Amino acid sequence: MLEVKSVSEVIRIIDDNFSIPGLESDVLRIEEAVGRIAAEDLKAPEDIPGFSRSSVDGYAVISADTFGASESTPAQLMHTGEVKMGEKPQLSLKNGQAVYIPTGGEMPGNADAVVMVEYTENLDDGYVYIQKSAAPGNSVVYKGDDVKAGDLVIKSGTRLRPQDVGVLAAMGYSRIAVRRKIRVGIVSTGDEIIGVDEKPTGAQVRDINSYALYAGLLEHGAQPELYGIVKDNFENIRQVVDKALQHSDIVLVSGGSSAGARDETRKVIDSLGSPGVLVHGIAVKPGKPTILGKIGEKAVIGLPGHPASAYSIFKAFVCHLIDVMDGRKDELKPAVRAIMSCKYPSNSGREEFLPVELGDNEGKLYASPVFGKSGLITLLTAADGYVHISRGSEGVDQGSEVEVFLF
Amino acid sequence: MLEVKSVSEVIRIIDDNFSIPGLESDVLRIEEAVGRIAAEDLKAPEDIPGFSRSSVDGYAVISADTFGASESTPAQLMHTGEVKMGEKPQLSLKNGQAVYIPTGGEMPGNADAVVMVEYTENLDDGYVYIQKSAAPGNSVVYKGDDVKAGDLVIKSGTRLRPQDVGVLAAMGYSRIAVRRKIRVGIVSTGDEIIGVDEKPTGAQVRDINSYALYAGLLEHGAQPELYGIVKDNFENIRQVVDKALQHSDIVLVSGGSSAGARDETRKVIDSLGSPGVLVHGIAVKPGKPTILGKIGEKAVIGLPGHPASAYSIFKAFVCHLIDVMDGRKDELKPAVRAIMSCKYPSNSGREEFLPVELGDNEGKLYASPVFGKSGLITLLTAADGYVHISRGSEGVDQGSEVEVFLF
Repeated sequence: MLEVKSVSEVIRIIDDNFSIPGLESDVLRIEEAVGRIAAEDLKAPEDIPGFSRSSVDGYAVISADTFGASESTPAQLMHTGEVKMGEKPQLSLKNGQAVYIPTGGEMPGNADAVVMVEYTENLDDGYVYIQKSAAPGNSVVYKGDDVKAGDLVIKSGTRLRPQDVGVLAAMGYSRIAVRRKIRVGIVSTGDEIIGVDEKPTGAQVRDINSYALYAGLLEHGAQPELYGIVKDNFENIRQVVDKALQHSDIVLVSGGSSAGARDETRKVIDSLGSPGVLVHGIAVKPGKPTILGKIGEKAVIGLPGHPASAYSIFKAFVCHLIDVMDGRKDELKPAVRAIMSCKYPSNSGREEFLPVELGDNEGKLYASPVFGKSGLITLLTAADGYVHISRGSEGVDQGSEVEVFLF
Repeated sequence: MLEVKSVSEVIRIIDDNFSIPGLESDVLRIEEAVGRIAAEDLKAPEDIPGFSRSSVDGYAVISADTFGASESTPAQLMHTGEVKMGEKPQLSLKNGQAVYIPTGGEMPGNADAVVMVEYTENLDDGYVYIQKSAAPGNSVVYKGDDVKAGDLVIKSGTRLRPQDVGVLAAMGYSRIAVRRKIRVGIVSTGDEIIGVDEKPTGAQVRDINSYALYAGLLEHGAQPELYGIVKDNFENIRQVVDKALQHSDIVLVSGGSSAGARDETRKVIDSLGSPGVLVHGIAVKPGKPTILGKIGEKAVIGLPGHPASAYSIFKAFVCHLIDVMDGRKDELKPAVRAIMSCKYPSNSGREEFLPVELGDNEGKLYASPVFGKSGLITLLTAADGYVHISRGSEGVDQGSEVEVFLF
């Protein structure tokens, strides 16, 4: 019999036992690749910017010509032309000359600084009056200042954010290879469970977990697949989990809620290969009867049958496992700050993911625990997120600040 | 000439001027509808649960039979059968009887409480020994306890989370109507801008903003469409923005970075209809030269040309506008807490979205401002998020705690 593990022990077991599977990748247009994981190092094929340019609207000058210039004693420079956006300037400056240049325009030959238009006066007398001294390099971005040809810009394993997509565009990558999504099969077990399109008779209930998990997996960037509902017996469960394992990196077995059903899942995992069951029971509320198994390099997870518990365990452990397999386990998890609206004493010896509802009161955000006998649906829809209460703590006081991880 | 507006004024102008467009909707399978907005009120067609059930594994009893029971003086009840998951129990209890019931099993007739199996003993002598007194209703979830037939469970306008999808499944909805996504056209302007697949010659640069915005829109749940790159002149820009407006709720004009280019965008907006330009200039760093216009019920936004500025304005204002049009403007924006690694004095009179990089040091998370002359790419990829520095503040001290909104 395996002993019940703490939350941090289970996270460590996941980190130690699983890694990024295979090397298959998809080739996508960059603008569709947001949220995906780069499958290769991407280097700059050329300098960026590819030419020295002005970072302001103003006049390109030879800086020495402006030394000592001020509003009362401006430097008088001959206005000899204008740089056009996107065009290579044909002109080259001589001492005493200035050329108008827009933001992003290429620096003309010999110019080594730009004076912002706000510090100049152009009286249309053929001269421009410079009212501020410029040092060499002022308002100039030099060729390669940003990125040098050959620099590594996007590392393999990076989850691509919109701004990374922008950078890929700058470097001329229109398509890139990204890792395929982590494939997750979902199996629902339980003699009482029927499909969403069926009408319950007797003591049947519709499958909730398959759909909530599918949606949660989509939201988390994985590729879910439903393997349907199976009756609570060893052979049926084994056959479907085995089939799901062929096509998946992770198989979720959303449990029958009774003790007998949980035992079947456990036996199935141990029967399918080694090392088999790694964790049976997590010291966390809700979600104690969670099972984590490993078959070859793949994971099988037995989730509690209660939908609120199943979803809570999904967010805390399954999403972390996906992050491990995606190579992004160190990503930060943003939260909102709120004030506890009441005292919540914690259960001795067990960590808790306390579901809370958020509400505004005079501009302050309050978190209130969502209680409910076994109101599956009430609990699921009322909760905006959860507060992680650690094992050592004695709970949370009314008025104390908490971090709420949104569901 | 319109005066420069503060961040909160611009947010108010967006809230006052835009609303949810049209009423078109898509019908989707519930498990694919995560992140979408419900287009109708969804009521429970039946009670949930549809029958009274046990919330534990144990023995269903008539509670009066257990009064006074304890470990030392258990109540001896005749063990008359077992409830099967998913089946309607045929048996009905008489006083002095108990029936085994699994979690989720339907309560047999006359039973009004369940005693957890942990507090019972079954010696296989035909009796079960109850070691704890049960009150009426103990460990029972009654028919309709969770949701009554006719209750409103998902309100029109709700953004569907995975758990909402689960609730829809429980109610037997397999497909639902969701609002169509907000359509956003993207136009890039600038004589110097070329497509991602082109090779720059002279002083040309590749289009960054179109791709970063497209990806950002996908991530934010909108439906982006690229309208390509147009040269910086009134007629060209007008023609393409006009066309984009026919198919979009919002058109983003990613600006030429020069003052002249910005003026063209402004004139185009005013030429296309009324009320025209609502905001020209926001007192925020970066992103001052932002333009917000309204043509009929649609929005046209002129974004700064600098990619980091454009993206910052996109996150702060365009995403908010999409939320308004999606009916979810009050959604919370999660952040991570970090400690400032250095002092950052603020610019007088302007709000700031300060790009920061996050780093771990001995278990604590630190935020460091990302500086950079005009290093477009460096700025874009190095920043993990931004700190919002308000107008009144004098900046942020080293060691103070800040909220970082992730990019």
